[in-house]
Amino acid sequence: MVGSVMAADFAAHGAGEPWRITIADSREPSLAAAAERCLRASPAAAVTTLRADLSSPAEIARAVRGADLVMGALASGIAFAAMRAVIEAGKNFCDIAFMPEEAAELDGLARSRGVTCVTDCGVAPGMSHMLATLAASELAECRSIAIYVGGLPRERRWPFQYKAAFSPADVIEEYTRPARLVRGGRHVTAEALSEPELLDFEGVGTLEAFNTDGLRSLVRTLGPGSPRPVPDMVEKTLRYPGHIELMRVMRAAGLFGTEPVRVGGAMVVPRELTAALVFPQWTYQPGEEDLTVMRVWAQGTAAPADPAAHPEGVGLTRVTYDLLDTYHRPSGATSMARTTALPATIVGRMIHSGRVRGPGVIVPELLGWDRPVMDQLLAELKARGVVYTRSVSGVPREA
Amino acid sequence: MVGSVMAADFAAHGAGEPWRITIADSREPSLAAAAERCLRASPAAAVTTLRADLSSPAEIARAVRGADLVMGALASGIAFAAMRAVIEAGKNFCDIAFMPEEAAELDGLARSRGVTCVTDCGVAPGMSHMLATLAASELAECRSIAIYVGGLPRERRWPFQYKAAFSPADVIEEYTRPARLVRGGRHVTAEALSEPELLDFEGVGTLEAFNTDGLRSLVRTLGPGSPRPVPDMVEKTLRYPGHIELMRVMRAAGLFGTEPVRVGGAMVVPRELTAALVFPQWTYQPGEEDLTVMRVWAQGTAAPADPAAHPEGVGLTRVTYDLLDTYHRPSGATSMARTTALPATIVGRMIHSGRVRGPGVIVPELLGWDRPVMDQLLAELKARGVVYTRSVSGVPREA
Repeated sequence: MVGSVMAADFAAHGAGEPWRITIADSREPSLAAAAERCLRASPAAAVTTLRADLSSPAEIARAVRGADLVMGALASGIAFAAMRAVIEAGKNFCDIAFMPEEAAELDGLARSRGVTCVTDCGVAPGMSHMLATLAASELAECRSIAIYVGGLPRERRWPFQYKAAFSPADVIEEYTRPARLVRGGRHVTAEALSEPELLDFEGVGTLEAFNTDGLRSLVRTLGPGSPRPVPDMVEKTLRYPGHIELMRVMRAAGLFGTEPVRVGGAMVVPRELTAALVFPQWTYQPGEEDLTVMRVWAQGTAAPADPAAHPEGVGLTRVTYDLLDTYHRPSGATSMARTTALPATIVGRMIHSGRVRGPGVIVPELLGWDRPVMDQLLAELKARGVVYTRSVSGVPREA
Repeated sequence: MVGSVMAADFAAHGAGEPWRITIADSREPSLAAAAERCLRASPAAAVTTLRADLSSPAEIARAVRGADLVMGALASGIAFAAMRAVIEAGKNFCDIAFMPEEAAELDGLARSRGVTCVTDCGVAPGMSHMLATLAASELAECRSIAIYVGGLPRERRWPFQYKAAFSPADVIEEYTRPARLVRGGRHVTAEALSEPELLDFEGVGTLEAFNTDGLRSLVRTLGPGSPRPVPDMVEKTLRYPGHIELMRVMRAAGLFGTEPVRVGGAMVVPRELTAALVFPQWTYQPGEEDLTVMRVWAQGTAAPADPAAHPEGVGLTRVTYDLLDTYHRPSGATSMARTTALPATIVGRMIHSGRVRGPGVIVPELLGWDRPVMDQLLAELKARGVVYTRSVSGVPREA
């Protein structure tokens, strides 16, 4: 889903330096579809496909041999081992996998190999984290950061009003795994699906947000004890209003449970049955349009040089970045795939050109402090139709 | 649940003619609890318990030998065979089982044995049907009948706001089995959970009603082709607002499905897993209070002799009977058990006294046309604290 859009972007945007692209996957139909997407993007594209079992580090090593740059878009379960294999092969790497492991554990290895590796470089995590620090960099002192993000079907359908652009199993995980966040300068844990709040988004309407476990590296890099700690940080997922309540009910009913239950003569894991029943209803049909909504803000005291930052003359300043992206009809690519793939391809090129420079494992919020990098990233995204909008507002001190 | 309240009512209300009571059940603890309930109702009660497998017609015959009157409160699956066995034994019978079979099929047998048998003689079916014809009997011409009924926990608890006073499996059946009703003089079928409407009930608040398959014998006795057909008849079940939507979602999610689904290596019937997860949450805890709400109305042209029937001078007349009954703290009996058991014990006595006279299988709506029987029944229920309230209102012709 994401990898083919990455490949097509390299095919279409050669920038005077045409790329030779190798696409690796274990599934022949996926390879064919990805190659076709590249050729539709640019009939002159130089594309090779390689069938390989990417859960095998040895096959990763074989696949990346001869590459100048490696892009990663693998399933979360095999992504960490793949990243290690790419780094061991001495290749620069840009990755979007939502891996459960800490990619930073490979920092020493990357440094020793002279490799630059950017992880979590999609939309969220990815742009979410970069925009959080970009917004924070505009403040004298950042007091709080909030990330709101959701991938949604354009058309709401009863009862769930939801489709999963990635693995529905990971969606249920979002509804059950406690969210790690930072509140009052301390690490805290909030129940999944907790603290619902309604927010309005231009062009979409009112959505509902709930706590999810998406801060990831931010709880470390900007958390308590970090050099520039931000005392309040939260990440929330967006859904159409009503979905959260249904998920809370299904969770309360035990339908997301992972402990086997005796039914008739068999032991059944409730979540597995729920998945079998609900996932077909949560899957996008071909051509069914999605959209991506994201709002990231940093709030704090204004930088002295910015008189516009206090429109009301008092209180705190909030710097907000908003995204509303929709299904891309010309290419038939989902918004989820494009908003995830394109930050990675643009940052990948910056790694290749030396504009983003390691060595080491780089988390996305580190890039957010670098205004020239961010200006170029946002401009290149905009050129591809993915438009982030910046706004600044005053916030009463109570907020 | 119901049988013990029946037995206790015979123990407490001997009416000068003390009953010798035999309670039969296959479960020793149920027998002990029922006997204890009788002795609490009247320390001088003459109670015998009999352990018997009541799914066996031979054991039924043995259990009812020597009885003057038999009361039935069996599980719906074994009730028809038990009824046949009681009739074959030549015993008068009053029953509250919600059997799937047509009890009327045993009418010929009952006539040949000289047996009077009243079926469906609880609250709904039971009082619902009697009050429908009682109300209809007050009109010159009955155009429509509606029955609204629900058993609910007094305290609403998130998320389901519901407890099942009888088998939760039968509740799910209510949420899936199409409702047979009469509309515009024709038999029609409506989807279960369909046509939700909000109704307000004094002392309870606003409840939500949905179509269920509870008209039973009424679709025949007052349906198209019957001697006094009523062109519109509906039965709806009451829940606290919000429950219906959750049940519709769970049904749409496939969680009430009866077709096995492959999960891991096993085939699982979704409804069975849902039942295993949800039923514990739907079960009343000891002492948890329930309530029973019922509204039955008949609507049509007023009887000429009743000037009060047209308060507004125009339109149709609606005769309504309302019930709000609550958990009975003195005896610890649920409202469901009392409102179901007491119509049967009162009618049972009327069978015994000859006031209700067969022979044959008698459906409850037949009793509703008999005002002296209904007056006595309502008075005896009121004496036991189960109070039905009658009201008459004018209805614009459009309604």
